[in-house]
Amino acid sequence: MAPPHLASPAFASLPHVVVVGGGFAGVAVARGLANQPVRVTIVDRHNFHTFLPLLYQVATAGLEPADVAYPIRTIFGHARNVGFRHGRVREVDEAENRVILDDGTDLAYDHLVVATGATASYFGIPGAREHALPLYSLADARRLRNRLLSSLEAADARADHDPVALTYVVVGGGPTGVETAGALAELIGIVLRRDGLRIDPASVRVVLVDLADRLLTAFPVSAGRYALRQLQLRGIDVRLGQSVVEVGPNVLRLASGEEITTTAVIWAAGVTATGTLAHHLNTAAGPAGRALVGPDLRCTSCENVWAVGDAAAIPAGSAVLPQLAPVAIQSGRHCAEQILRVLRGQPTEPFRYRNKGIMATIGRRAAVAKLPRGGVIRGTAGWASWLGLHLFYLVGFRNRLRVLINWTWRYFDWPSGPRLIVADAETVD
Amino acid sequence: MAPPHLASPAFASLPHVVVVGGGFAGVAVARGLANQPVRVTIVDRHNFHTFLPLLYQVATAGLEPADVAYPIRTIFGHARNVGFRHGRVREVDEAENRVILDDGTDLAYDHLVVATGATASYFGIPGAREHALPLYSLADARRLRNRLLSSLEAADARADHDPVALTYVVVGGGPTGVETAGALAELIGIVLRRDGLRIDPASVRVVLVDLADRLLTAFPVSAGRYALRQLQLRGIDVRLGQSVVEVGPNVLRLASGEEITTTAVIWAAGVTATGTLAHHLNTAAGPAGRALVGPDLRCTSCENVWAVGDAAAIPAGSAVLPQLAPVAIQSGRHCAEQILRVLRGQPTEPFRYRNKGIMATIGRRAAVAKLPRGGVIRGTAGWASWLGLHLFYLVGFRNRLRVLINWTWRYFDWPSGPRLIVADAETVD
Repeated sequence: MAPPHLASPAFASLPHVVVVGGGFAGVAVARGLANQPVRVTIVDRHNFHTFLPLLYQVATAGLEPADVAYPIRTIFGHARNVGFRHGRVREVDEAENRVILDDGTDLAYDHLVVATGATASYFGIPGAREHALPLYSLADARRLRNRLLSSLEAADARADHDPVALTYVVVGGGPTGVETAGALAELIGIVLRRDGLRIDPASVRVVLVDLADRLLTAFPVSAGRYALRQLQLRGIDVRLGQSVVEVGPNVLRLASGEEITTTAVIWAAGVTATGTLAHHLNTAAGPAGRALVGPDLRCTSCENVWAVGDAAAIPAGSAVLPQLAPVAIQSGRHCAEQILRVLRGQPTEPFRYRNKGIMATIGRRAAVAKLPRGGVIRGTAGWASWLGLHLFYLVGFRNRLRVLINWTWRYFDWPSGPRLIVADAETVD
Repeated sequence: MAPPHLASPAFASLPHVVVVGGGFAGVAVARGLANQPVRVTIVDRHNFHTFLPLLYQVATAGLEPADVAYPIRTIFGHARNVGFRHGRVREVDEAENRVILDDGTDLAYDHLVVATGATASYFGIPGAREHALPLYSLADARRLRNRLLSSLEAADARADHDPVALTYVVVGGGPTGVETAGALAELIGIVLRRDGLRIDPASVRVVLVDLADRLLTAFPVSAGRYALRQLQLRGIDVRLGQSVVEVGPNVLRLASGEEITTTAVIWAAGVTATGTLAHHLNTAAGPAGRALVGPDLRCTSCENVWAVGDAAAIPAGSAVLPQLAPVAIQSGRHCAEQILRVLRGQPTEPFRYRNKGIMATIGRRAAVAKLPRGGVIRGTAGWASWLGLHLFYLVGFRNRLRVLINWTWRYFDWPSGPRLIVADAETVD
């Protein structure tokens, strides 16, 4: 049944679903409710959806910010019952069924879906929050890119006076850390080869540090070994079994006592929902501040509050599901179905995650994928699947076209690229 | 003659030309010196060249920042004698033939070319500098875009509580003002029609204010009339013969005593070189802080200091040449030739500007061009020439391709567009 026209009184009387967060999970919820007999409002502090799996490409100047971001209003341009509110939710008043926004306005809801995602976790390591650069929003990616390119320019400018060594440290050996380290090595290679900077390539070092004794612990052992070999082939110094005890402005201290002098520390060590809205809901707490939900994705204490994606701790046997894009998308879709069931007076159904595998890319023609049944694809075939899948999931035909152009360009190493330092400081000029 | 290899001692002994500024003029100088027996260093506080004529399209969300910017190192990737230094020149020491940069380093030169352009001129109008938004750098354009889109989102958010009127004022009826007002009206039309904001179109107003009694005073009278009609057709309230006496945070005061309550004041009233490096050179001052140069583009007081483009006051009969992109490009090219002549011991030649006409676009299928002999092209033909010419002059094949895609998209009004609010405030999240 199509919903009544927006201007009709019948529309205003439809149940109102407020979705906080326009990431994979929030967008999946709203897509599931599009053109159904409900009113939906997505609230996000950004007016765009960010394709997080490609954020590291923005940070390493492979893609433009606009390639991985898409206006939320545009995504739902054809779903007249889905609206958008630009703002940040300060508080949920579960007793009164309303959310209060930062600008003091509020929104009453019949159902609330918390899809606020997660942020970088610093695990209480001194100095990490102050000095390390996380990679979890478009602003993070832009800041990191400015920092990387500016440090290369600054080294070039000092070359007449005082040649400097450049060391970039990536903390974290999961997919984000591995992908970022690989892309960073590629970026530095292109910049040094093409841009004529007066920097000795031998003085530039990329280090990847992880606590575990192997890379990609969510993948089979062979995939971790493959990633290690590929990173080393690209000149990256991989330090496994090393824990970080402190981060300073230009130094990283390891538990072994070793100090690494660094130009930038990129933080890809893990995420948390502590401090986000999910953490403040009136529900049982799951690991890392996530909101613990029942099998139907409802919060444990409230009939009409749901949590999905990275913000939710979704039970799976004795553990909870990992914070992955496919979990976010599937849980969002399931949540929308359950809200419609509740509104129709039907009982809810439990969420069942369909594992479609995971993948990580190290660089051109080098990627690994873990298939649902445990098999591994790697090398060029893994890379081609990675490319295709990421293009497929990017929102909007125009974004796909532009990403394809940018990737093709990069693949053939044409002497161009979005290596603009659009620094934040500039905006005060 | 090809220059000696970079690493050879002969290279270091070549005359060093320092070009301050990587805009149209600076890039033209360096292009003219590429692969000639000199060393060239372009100094710019941005690592990219900005295509200023399309900046208003970035401000009105028609193009992405990366569409109009191109890394300077990439432009000269194949000219081994052209280098780049990322930084800002603080001072010129003409006695010692060196420039001193903000980071304390210096560069010795044999010839210095000042191509630092101009900045917005506020004509001493109280509050204009503090409250109006200029449009003269990529950062300006991004800031203006964030302000425009954020104001629309904020109005939507307040719609439940307190419906607001939105008024955008453009100050200046030259090409920049006319183009910005036209594109702004198009942006608002698309946003309201496509994005489902709860804003009454009748409550949104675009006003263009100018001191003169007609638009586009550099064009024939008929072109100004055409632009006026086209802007009015797009619903823009054009107020001619009105001078601005004060700008407040949300108000614009006119000499007539009228006050216009505004959401944003866009400043396109004119430019000045006062306060820039050109203004501090040891040479006679031209109008608006520009460095007065001789017919060969050398500063009046110094044999080896040159000024080109918007930074220079280039004599043309009893007046000086206007600050236009073609003047910048031609003067840059001429300056390069004269430096080579001086180095070869030949006398310099005077600069002769070849007028190729000027153009301005008001919106889709509406533009005016003034031909060198005084004729006017307008309407669809003018617009098609405008499109073609701007594509032709954009640096880099990839940028052209992307701008073409973005324009095609906008022309057909597909429900997409780079309407991202990538606010500066975000970066502190």
